Amino acid sequence: MNATLVSELYEQLDMIPIVDIHTHVDWKAPTARHIGDILSYHYYTELVNSAAFQHGSFPFDDPEALTRIIVENLPHIRHTVQYDWLMAISQEFLGIEPWEWEPHHADAILARSAEIMGDDAWFEEVASQANIQRVYLTNQYDDDLEGLDTSFFTPCLRVESFVLDVLKPDARERMAAVLGRPIRLPSDVTALIDGTFRRFMEHGMGYAAISSPAGLRTFAVSDQDAERILRSAVAGNALTSADREAWAAYALARVADACRTYERPFHLMIGVNRDVYAHGVPSGTDLFDSVNSMRGYDWLLNTYQDVRFPTAVLADTTGLELVAAAWIRHNVYPSGHWWYANQPTEIGRELRRRLDTVPSSKLVGYFSDAYYLEFILPKFRMFKFELASALADRMERSLVHPNMTPFSMDDALELGHAILVDNPLRIVGHMT
Amino acid sequence: MNATLVSELYEQLDMIPIVDIHTHVDWKAPTARHIGDILSYHYYTELVNSAAFQHGSFPFDDPEALTRIIVENLPHIRHTVQYDWLMAISQEFLGIEPWEWEPHHADAILARSAEIMGDDAWFEEVASQANIQRVYLTNQYDDDLEGLDTSFFTPCLRVESFVLDVLKPDARERMAAVLGRPIRLPSDVTALIDGTFRRFMEHGMGYAAISSPAGLRTFAVSDQDAERILRSAVAGNALTSADREAWAAYALARVADACRTYERPFHLMIGVNRDVYAHGVPSGTDLFDSVNSMRGYDWLLNTYQDVRFPTAVLADTTGLELVAAAWIRHNVYPSGHWWYANQPTEIGRELRRRLDTVPSSKLVGYFSDAYYLEFILPKFRMFKFELASALADRMERSLVHPNMTPFSMDDALELGHAILVDNPLRIVGHMT
Amino acid sequence: MNATLVSELYEQLDMIPIVDIHTHVDWKAPTARHIGDILSYHYYTELVNSAAFQHGSFPFDDPEALTRIIVENLPHIRHTVQYDWLMAISQEFLGIEPWEWEPHHADAILARSAEIMGDDAWFEEVASQANIQRVYLTNQYDDDLEGLDTSFFTPCLRVESFVLDVLKPDARERMAAVLGRPIRLPSDVTALIDGTFRRFMEHGMGYAAISSPAGLRTFAVSDQDAERILRSAVAGNALTSADREAWAAYALARVADACRTYERPFHLMIGVNRDVYAHGVPSGTDLFDSVNSMRGYDWLLNTYQDVRFPTAVLADTTGLELVAAAWIRHNVYPSGHWWYANQPTEIGRELRRRLDTVPSSKLVGYFSDAYYLEFILPKFRMFKFELASALADRMERSLVHPNMTPFSMDDALELGHAILVDNPLRIVGHMT
Repeated sequence: MNATLVSELYEQLDMIPIVDIHTHVDWKAPTARHIGDILSYHYYTELVNSAAFQHGSFPFDDPEALTRIIVENLPHIRHTVQYDWLMAISQEFLGIEPWEWEPHHADAILARSAEIMGDDAWFEEVASQANIQRVYLTNQYDDDLEGLDTSFFTPCLRVESFVLDVLKPDARERMAAVLGRPIRLPSDVTALIDGTFRRFMEHGMGYAAISSPAGLRTFAVSDQDAERILRSAVAGNALTSADREAWAAYALARVADACRTYERPFHLMIGVNRDVYAHGVPSGTDLFDSVNSMRGYDWLLNTYQDVRFPTAVLADTTGLELVAAAWIRHNVYPSGHWWYANQPTEIGRELRRRLDTVPSSKLVGYFSDAYYLEFILPKFRMFKFELASALADRMERSLVHPNMTPFSMDDALELGHAILVDNPLRIVGHMT
Repeated sequence: MNATLVSELYEQLDMIPIVDIHTHVDWKAPTARHIGDILSYHYYTELVNSAAFQHGSFPFDDPEALTRIIVENLPHIRHTVQYDWLMAISQEFLGIEPWEWEPHHADAILARSAEIMGDDAWFEEVASQANIQRVYLTNQYDDDLEGLDTSFFTPCLRVESFVLDVLKPDARERMAAVLGRPIRLPSDVTALIDGTFRRFMEHGMGYAAISSPAGLRTFAVSDQDAERILRSAVAGNALTSADREAWAAYALARVADACRTYERPFHLMIGVNRDVYAHGVPSGTDLFDSVNSMRGYDWLLNTYQDVRFPTAVLADTTGLELVAAAWIRHNVYPSGHWWYANQPTEIGRELRRRLDTVPSSKLVGYFSDAYYLEFILPKFRMFKFELASALADRMERSLVHPNMTPFSMDDALELGHAILVDNPLRIVGHMT
Repeated sequence: MNATLVSELYEQLDMIPIVDIHTHVDWKAPTARHIGDILSYHYYTELVNSAAFQHGSFPFDDPEALTRIIVENLPHIRHTVQYDWLMAISQEFLGIEPWEWEPHHADAILARSAEIMGDDAWFEEVASQANIQRVYLTNQYDDDLEGLDTSFFTPCLRVESFVLDVLKPDARERMAAVLGRPIRLPSDVTALIDGTFRRFMEHGMGYAAISSPAGLRTFAVSDQDAERILRSAVAGNALTSADREAWAAYALARVADACRTYERPFHLMIGVNRDVYAHGVPSGTDLFDSVNSMRGYDWLLNTYQDVRFPTAVLADTTGLELVAAAWIRHNVYPSGHWWYANQPTEIGRELRRRLDTVPSSKLVGYFSDAYYLEFILPKFRMFKFELASALADRMERSLVHPNMTPFSMDDALELGHAILVDNPLRIVGHMT
């Protein structure tokens, strides 16, 4: 690593505003109230549960107790990127230095953080200090969007409800309440999808999104088959796995229909296995399967050729498949680095693969997946540092590589800007 | 990267002549007529189709229009290795500098290229400038080989026709025309295989080769079973997937029989899924599957212990499997870096794995997969640069590694020569 | 690579004593008698068999002949890490320099080695020179442990016999001899497991261990089902693969029961396919399958939440799965770098992944898998060098990374000590 060059590049990239195309921020409570909210993020509870078993249980209702438990166990994770995010938040936003993070300071840290984060202008301060331009949200079909500030937030529709949950009675009841009639036929589901898209579009809808399990397959399913399956579910019958698979394929296509109609992208997040770890903390029970391929998506990607599919993959083993898909498929856009792949080793490898072979205008750089606005800055810093490293490597090799002409600092920053802002806004945001 | 050391090593490796053990060069038209031929290579059409969707369609019959479309869209791929290949061709062979590649120069570039490439001595010039010693071809069983210059070209037999296509009527008709009688029995197929090997041997045959799909399995299939399956196909029946799988395994063994008889290697290229992308350009519709292993080849590799199997894998996920196979199996030779894996990230990783654990005498360095002779130089440069990087790393670590004695420049170049020339000629070419 | 910093770090790590948590050392003959023993290690015979085919056969009973064959073929593997191990042994323990390893010196090398290694104090010399603190063994249930020096050796129980072999008659007979009655019912197997644990505990038992094939699945199996399967095997019936799978799951749970009762860890080594290469040397016929996941272990890991599972994976494709499991699961500990993954490329990548995201108190650094004590030093050197590289990278990035505070030499060494000694002793050895 050429530290000087990486630093120079990083400083420039750091000045580029942040467009965060996927978060779990709650627009009604976008920032933390105190450090206890920050520490309740599953990245900390799960690591502490892993290092010093808590039976998956933390005192989420008691910020003082929660803070104390996490702080006591910080020494176990002092060398992780997750710890680095926390320290960046602590230093940048709260002015609390790493050496202060000692158990006997836990209460004081909590109190100080509550004071600072309780400021009326806290949201504006964080957004401004982190230079955040736009934040995409994760919303359910029944989320309230009235009053959403669309100059900053973009609502995005998660569609697991239609694809997976609708086969369960309680999920159908919740949907029926929104639709105004029971969910009995596929047309009820498509009506709900369409109505939801229409409502979201009024609030500047970004895209539809799904996180899908390993092994998901898409294929053409007739309305008749879909009707039979849904009727069977409504009748309370147990469904075969083939029926569940067929419904998922059918519903995915109906969502893609709506994406086509409303000209919105369909954001795929491929390969999570939910509820795998029996003793985990909330949001800390999911893993992935290295045995997973993108082949199951061929039908969807081919059939909806006019829909854009920004795509993130969870397994490292799917990384080159995604690169190859983005390399030849016109409607696949490699998008960010997700969850277990969101750390320097995977980011560094995937970035280099993507930069070397995928059209630069198709690269969607990064998303934070953050629950609070405060996490956006440290996570983007992590990505920007890896991007700076990859660009610095390219600058250095270009000077001696027999096939290359010099790749200049300006070239690097132009590419960085495309990846960080221009492409996300154009591809995901339909803004030019 | 120690740029000085890498450059020094590269300069030395660059002087080693090129033995290109796998290309798609047409020996009757081995070079491009003009830049339009170069730009019609699927690496450019597919990237342009991906970045600026053309519905998979380009004016291949109109070099001016084709050239204009590609040149207009070059900015999308200016940071890719594929672009670097093009610029290397442009600068080295045509004297056209990168800055000239502007849309308003497209016609002029085409005209100039046609003039230069139209020279009677063009083939000799390219071969000499690129220092190409030998080029292996990809030939069908009915390719005309009369007049082939065997001092430069080595014909190699692709066997998909026998293994996969023979189950289709039109493929059998084409084969019947060569065999002189209808293809009705397995013995007809083996007669055609044998006759083809005999004819190829008269023209200095290199090897038999197949590119195989993910999940292919080899196992013993009786003549009786093979006869039943082929008769069923000839009778026009639809075959089960088990029957297709059995026929493929049977026919692969018959090709391996011929390899044994004629003492030729069997080049395996493992893991391509054909015709996956519905809107792709010609040769730009294939992808791969990360879920694929070499286990299906155990039977073939064990049974034909006296046949050499130079092997390339398409999926990054099969890379270490290939290394492990070459590490213990005497007849598996890791061979080059194929297609989506033919870029710096994968080459760098696989090279290091191979150099660290596989006998040096078994490493078959690289092949270009080129359609025109002009592509051989830039592609080998890309590989040689990665090889120089890997060797430079080794030289540097050897000076401080507790288990290593100094790995000198001479050691590095000896190893490089083995990988680039000696092994390919000995293992693939049966030349010593 | 910052060679100066890596060297400085390595020198410090080199002084840390070795705790080797998995070997195949025979405690009654822990060191080699001469270089022929060293060269009979499958890492050398398999590479020579691979480079210069010997039909899997070597004169193991004739050290002179064996030594000559290996030495003659050393040029094929001069660039491998396996060769580097040999040279380290040669220089460090025998004072024989690399240049002496010529065919005409083979007899002399053998003679000299026999003299040196025949010294009565050889074991102590090797252990002292390599600074080995403790060596974990691999033992079968019927291994003799009387007289074992538990201040240096820790016996560990391999359980394939109970999980896989017990379905074969000759394995049951061998077990019956130990149990004192025929193996007819699951309770006979559990009695043998329990008796074995009790006996091993008297000799300072380390852990139970299994190396498992790709695709293994764990799930609840009733005693009734297990009894039906075992009775069927005893009756000489052919078992279905479902029955074999169910028995394996049942027996694994019974071993885990004993681990729980005796508070011992269960060491998982995941993903080897045995007897794949038909022409291999002893211990040189096994490979792995890149298509393998840890999903099959969910039930075991969840059910035995109070049992520790140090885990090694063979496939590179399972590496991030293991990291993710260790990241959230409290009872999974990434353990070493196994076999085909035990080389710099994989070690370097996995180490960085683990250091960046897994609690530092859960990382079990390395094991040698050695058959003779002499191999421990060079293998640990290889690992320590990669660890020094990873730590040096971290020190360098910490100086310029926007999220990091300086990672000092002391921080690096503290982390190194945890990984190399503290964690292995605490997690695997239950020593604090």
